[in-house]
Amino acid sequence: MMADQKKMVTEITAMDTDFAKWYTDVVKKAELVDYSSVKGCMVIRPYGYAIWENIQKDLDARFKELGHENVYMPMFIPESLLQKEKDHVEGFAPEVAWVTQGGANKLTERLCVRPTSETLFCEHYKNIIHSYRDLPKLYNQWCNVVRWEKTTRPFLRTSEFLWQEGHTMHETEEEAREETLRMLKCYTDFYRETLAIPAVTGRKTEKEKFAGALETYTVEPMMHNGVALQGGTSHYFGDGFARAFDITYVDRSNKLQYPFQTSWGVSTRMIGAIIMTHGDDNGLVLPPKVAPIQVAVIPIAMHKEGVLEKARELCGRLKGLFRVKLDDSDNSPGWKFSEYEMKGVPVRLEIGPKDIEQNQCVLVRRDNREKNFVSLDNLEQEITRVLEAVHQGLYERALANLEGKTYTARDHEEFLDIAENKPGFIRAMWCGDEACETRLKEETGGVKSRCIPFDGEPVSDVCACCGKPAKHLVVWGKQY
Amino acid sequence: MMADQKKMVTEITAMDTDFAKWYTDVVKKAELVDYSSVKGCMVIRPYGYAIWENIQKDLDARFKELGHENVYMPMFIPESLLQKEKDHVEGFAPEVAWVTQGGANKLTERLCVRPTSETLFCEHYKNIIHSYRDLPKLYNQWCNVVRWEKTTRPFLRTSEFLWQEGHTMHETEEEAREETLRMLKCYTDFYRETLAIPAVTGRKTEKEKFAGALETYTVEPMMHNGVALQGGTSHYFGDGFARAFDITYVDRSNKLQYPFQTSWGVSTRMIGAIIMTHGDDNGLVLPPKVAPIQVAVIPIAMHKEGVLEKARELCGRLKGLFRVKLDDSDNSPGWKFSEYEMKGVPVRLEIGPKDIEQNQCVLVRRDNREKNFVSLDNLEQEITRVLEAVHQGLYERALANLEGKTYTARDHEEFLDIAENKPGFIRAMWCGDEACETRLKEETGGVKSRCIPFDGEPVSDVCACCGKPAKHLVVWGKQY
Repeated sequence: MMADQKKMVTEITAMDTDFAKWYTDVVKKAELVDYSSVKGCMVIRPYGYAIWENIQKDLDARFKELGHENVYMPMFIPESLLQKEKDHVEGFAPEVAWVTQGGANKLTERLCVRPTSETLFCEHYKNIIHSYRDLPKLYNQWCNVVRWEKTTRPFLRTSEFLWQEGHTMHETEEEAREETLRMLKCYTDFYRETLAIPAVTGRKTEKEKFAGALETYTVEPMMHNGVALQGGTSHYFGDGFARAFDITYVDRSNKLQYPFQTSWGVSTRMIGAIIMTHGDDNGLVLPPKVAPIQVAVIPIAMHKEGVLEKARELCGRLKGLFRVKLDDSDNSPGWKFSEYEMKGVPVRLEIGPKDIEQNQCVLVRRDNREKNFVSLDNLEQEITRVLEAVHQGLYERALANLEGKTYTARDHEEFLDIAENKPGFIRAMWCGDEACETRLKEETGGVKSRCIPFDGEPVSDVCACCGKPAKHLVVWGKQY
Repeated sequence: MMADQKKMVTEITAMDTDFAKWYTDVVKKAELVDYSSVKGCMVIRPYGYAIWENIQKDLDARFKELGHENVYMPMFIPESLLQKEKDHVEGFAPEVAWVTQGGANKLTERLCVRPTSETLFCEHYKNIIHSYRDLPKLYNQWCNVVRWEKTTRPFLRTSEFLWQEGHTMHETEEEAREETLRMLKCYTDFYRETLAIPAVTGRKTEKEKFAGALETYTVEPMMHNGVALQGGTSHYFGDGFARAFDITYVDRSNKLQYPFQTSWGVSTRMIGAIIMTHGDDNGLVLPPKVAPIQVAVIPIAMHKEGVLEKARELCGRLKGLFRVKLDDSDNSPGWKFSEYEMKGVPVRLEIGPKDIEQNQCVLVRRDNREKNFVSLDNLEQEITRVLEAVHQGLYERALANLEGKTYTARDHEEFLDIAENKPGFIRAMWCGDEACETRLKEETGGVKSRCIPFDGEPVSDVCACCGKPAKHLVVWGKQY
């Protein structure tokens, strides 16, 4: 067992040495995932899955508060159904897994394992939408989806992942557009309020939007190393799918109309965003609201009389208010400190014989390692205050990172210089021509348009690629 | 809209006329499911999915209370992995869906969509179990699984379904056997305490046990028409999979050992059990603990002054304590009564101008249609009491059905006579020979051994099939 223990607390690669290696070290050492023999798929271990459960619980309450209902659709899509909307199938067909055999029989029509479920929702909506009284339909589902990826990394890009996908239908274009932006805001709020992650938000360019959508909006947080992660998207479809699937309803003036549609989703990739936004060279740093363990209690000189009893009593007191874990294993306190640091537990309490004498304990913050004596009399209030401070501290540090690594490029030369030398976001003007997006991406080894941000003044009059008159301010960056 | 309304409250087929037709009428009219173009797969609609969410929440808390942790495994199993345990693959291979193509490429090894995940858990356990200190491992996952079925019915038998599968590893045989029975008890308690469903419990015969298990235990509730439903199973594996997957650990005396394993699962089929145990000719009857709406509030003479305000006030009062829905739509009260009866809502409150004058409302129970005036002063207590009474009433009615339709057969002739004339369970002795099970099944058009029950005295000395000396009392019955 000592060998096992050593393995767990072995130092991880430093972020600055090799960020990618640091990331895989953290996901393994913090016991978030295990690899499997299934190409591109991962095992989500209890500690990783508990983060996902906390994310689900929080988001699900937000969705329901906004009137959404959960459903479950089949995970197979017959090829003919997938093909009904032309742009959609073109976007997804190259990356789907196909079931061709059921039991002993070859299927007459192959089935794709859902990469997303617009087509299935549309088929169902056709059955249940007839009148304006049937609208809006505000459905969501939590499920697994598959996109056949060539290179994969835990949480960030895997062939199978877990997500939620909202699919809604509305009477009017205006209502559907409002829903699209409402759900983008829901995601942005969740990132800020629950994950302590700031992000740039805006509209995707034509080139980067979802296959089949008229407009795609996105939440784009910046990872610690300056690279972007597409953190969540919300799509406005107009009535394109409704026409393709012949979904109609009788409107208020008794006319037949096509309804207007949205979809929106976030996935287990958010766990990757948490790791790469908040983590440090000692491992994971978890935002308190999704941390499976918020408070780790470590008895010091555990075998001295009264210590373990006091530690247990403390845990009992805190249990209803926080997610608490008492570690009364035989491992040394130092080993335990490292373990809970690796696992990103926001607050550690140490309590030993001297502390007990003085009716206090030691409270250590994971994020800045601040260490303070706290009276046992008002421990609950103090932990509540510190967890809030950890959340705020993480958010501010991430915001400083995002702002500090956002650069402005006024022309082509400046753009290339920043792209080469300064990892981060680039704010630069764009003429609206897809050719310029393609060229900038090729010249920079992968800097793409993240979005046309909601906020921001023009930084020049001309496109940072071709020099022609500019139409939009765009935030650019490399992505995971 | 009036046409839609009429369609919804159209009478359903009577149970006694055609139980199968009654069942499909209920699942459609209560808006639990919709059919889809995907063969054998169903759409679970919001009302049906909300029942599943309540089931999940309750069961998940029970599992966690017993120390289990949730994880997520890949949904694909490489063919070579599935083949590692011989009995297991023989049992499942005939009914799995195979993925043979990923994106544009034919796969070098085909992947089966999980029908169950023993093999994946074993692969992971091999990576993380090394010492007795790593045991027990008590994992569970909530997911979708696929078994390619020829004839399907919503909830009861579908090609894809939702379930939970627990997979545990233990130091000793004794511990693993205890876990197997602990989880069977967990299911039995859940059926009784949450679903208000009584059941026969016991051990499956060799012929009926899970592919790869040494022993399978089962919960067998009886549906209203006397047919059994395999409601949940718990399996003891010994160290068979551990040997096949070469999972070993160093025990307390420093020797290499194989760990002992269990698995256990229940699925969305439980929703079918709820429908067929409690439902009646007016539709669904839901046990209060999983009902998405526990109390429906129907304003009477809604447009008279003060009625809607009072109804809203009532809902506000009840909201924190119960799952309440106010129906303030334009539909008539009579139509609303039918709708919430069809949807099996346990309690209906009617409130009109006269009730308001007298500070009361009308409370109607769904299960026995008992109707009482209740003072608004102690409405909360009264609803709490009635919901408890509904639960108890449902349980007792179901128990009376189970006991009333359980018959004893002392010999072969009696067995065949009961099987032909009295739908229900048959208690009869068995010699232990599989040939007798097969023969009884063939002679009776499908009466199979449900289980060797934990409780029950021998009913004769000889096998009810061959007349040779009996080994076990067996409960027999047809099944869904």
